[in-house]
Amino acid sequence: MTLKVYADRMSQPSRAVIIFCKINGIEFEEVKIDISRRQHRTPEFEEINPMKKVPAIVDGRFKLFESHAIMIYLAYVFPGVADHWYPADLSKRAKIHSVLDWHHSNLRHGAATYVLNSTLGPALGRPLNPKAAAEGEKILSESLAKIESVWLKGNGRFLLGSLQPSIADLSLVCEIMQLEVVNEKDRDRILGPHKKVLKWINDTKNATRPHFDEVHSVLFKVKEKLKRLQSGGAKDETQSTLKSALHSKM
Amino acid sequence: MTLKVYADRMSQPSRAVIIFCKINGIEFEEVKIDISRRQHRTPEFEEINPMKKVPAIVDGRFKLFESHAIMIYLAYVFPGVADHWYPADLSKRAKIHSVLDWHHSNLRHGAATYVLNSTLGPALGRPLNPKAAAEGEKILSESLAKIESVWLKGNGRFLLGSLQPSIADLSLVCEIMQLEVVNEKDRDRILGPHKKVLKWINDTKNATRPHFDEVHSVLFKVKEKLKRLQSGGAKDETQSTLKSALHSKM
Repeated sequence: MTLKVYADRMSQPSRAVIIFCKINGIEFEEVKIDISRRQHRTPEFEEINPMKKVPAIVDGRFKLFESHAIMIYLAYVFPGVADHWYPADLSKRAKIHSVLDWHHSNLRHGAATYVLNSTLGPALGRPLNPKAAAEGEKILSESLAKIESVWLKGNGRFLLGSLQPSIADLSLVCEIMQLEVVNEKDRDRILGPHKKVLKWINDTKNATRPHFDEVHSVLFKVKEKLKRLQSGGAKDETQSTLKSALHSKM
Repeated sequence: MTLKVYADRMSQPSRAVIIFCKINGIEFEEVKIDISRRQHRTPEFEEINPMKKVPAIVDGRFKLFESHAIMIYLAYVFPGVADHWYPADLSKRAKIHSVLDWHHSNLRHGAATYVLNSTLGPALGRPLNPKAAAEGEKILSESLAKIESVWLKGNGRFLLGSLQPSIADLSLVCEIMQLEVVNEKDRDRILGPHKKVLKWINDTKNATRPHFDEVHSVLFKVKEKLKRLQSGGAKDETQSTLKSALHSKM
């Protein structure tokens, strides 16, 4: 039975899991769960993931959610996954767990809070919230600084001084990519000061091409559509503007 | 060279790691890092953990932080750790990763936000914030409901229907124990409705005795001291009241 991946490519952890499967030649069926249409809240999807979040997988009779846990599981059970994604070496593996744990309450918390409250909220039925956006940006900027000074310390092109990417690189870069939908000036202000981060994003893109670009294409489409809608008179990112951008994304 | 565990027993993930070592007979030296005295922000500790958080470990020349990553590492490298703490079975292991990942943005996020903003903040140099406390409580209560309906579904005494505890039980229960320092009426209001959670906390305590009680004794001391200070005229949990309770905790 083929592995099923329940995902919305507008969700950053969904993209990480899809890219991981594609680059490792894991056969899977992608089941689209459109968050902007609230498909993650249907009783059918609740049977797959009672937490009502994407991504989730079904492998035979085994169900699993949480993107880090999913990638670790896939690295274990699919023999084609190269060691660098989730190394057998215990100390390397432990450090990857450490990055991934840190990710939850730092980069992910900051970036998701910022993007939701500065840009995407209205499309998901929540008002924009400048105060929450500012708090998110603070955590995001501190996290980017820590990525540079701690995780990207040394000469390796990837996190933890590695020469090849791991599931941690993929998770964290997919998170930062979500900033593509944000106003360009704001994105440059936030990412601009972090040259090592920018280089690392590029290195991760290059190491996972062509899948990285293909899986992110929906994000770029939404970005372009938002730009057009805004320059065409809809100066504010209103609920209907965003919803129309999201609903027509595929 | 003995394993060093840098910890503050007032920190819930620190307690999880200490109890894990003790119950598994792992020899270690506990190095106290007193958060209320800002010892986690010294240059010496920054050498151990550049993120300035406890717990952290040093095993020979290997340094690691993030409590989940630490317990997984210890389960790998210390042969005395019983399988149920971090099962070799891939699907069981994957589900434990899923619980631990979920923990970060749900139970831990909610409980830590609530306790900090309702009670402990002033002792750590932050004012109380009733609005943030209310937001934390909402996430905490939703998380407790999910623990009951999802993770404690079935007949097992522990998470995921297990008959013996895993590192996920230990992490989550230590988090909930932090509510001991909160006003009794508030704690009962929050925990009271979740009978299955209360039973599971008790089962986890019983499975890890006497270490669970011993490692949590500092929390109970702070709780008693706070009660006495409050009933003795200091009606508000002022900065000095809390600081004195924390500083004299050992």
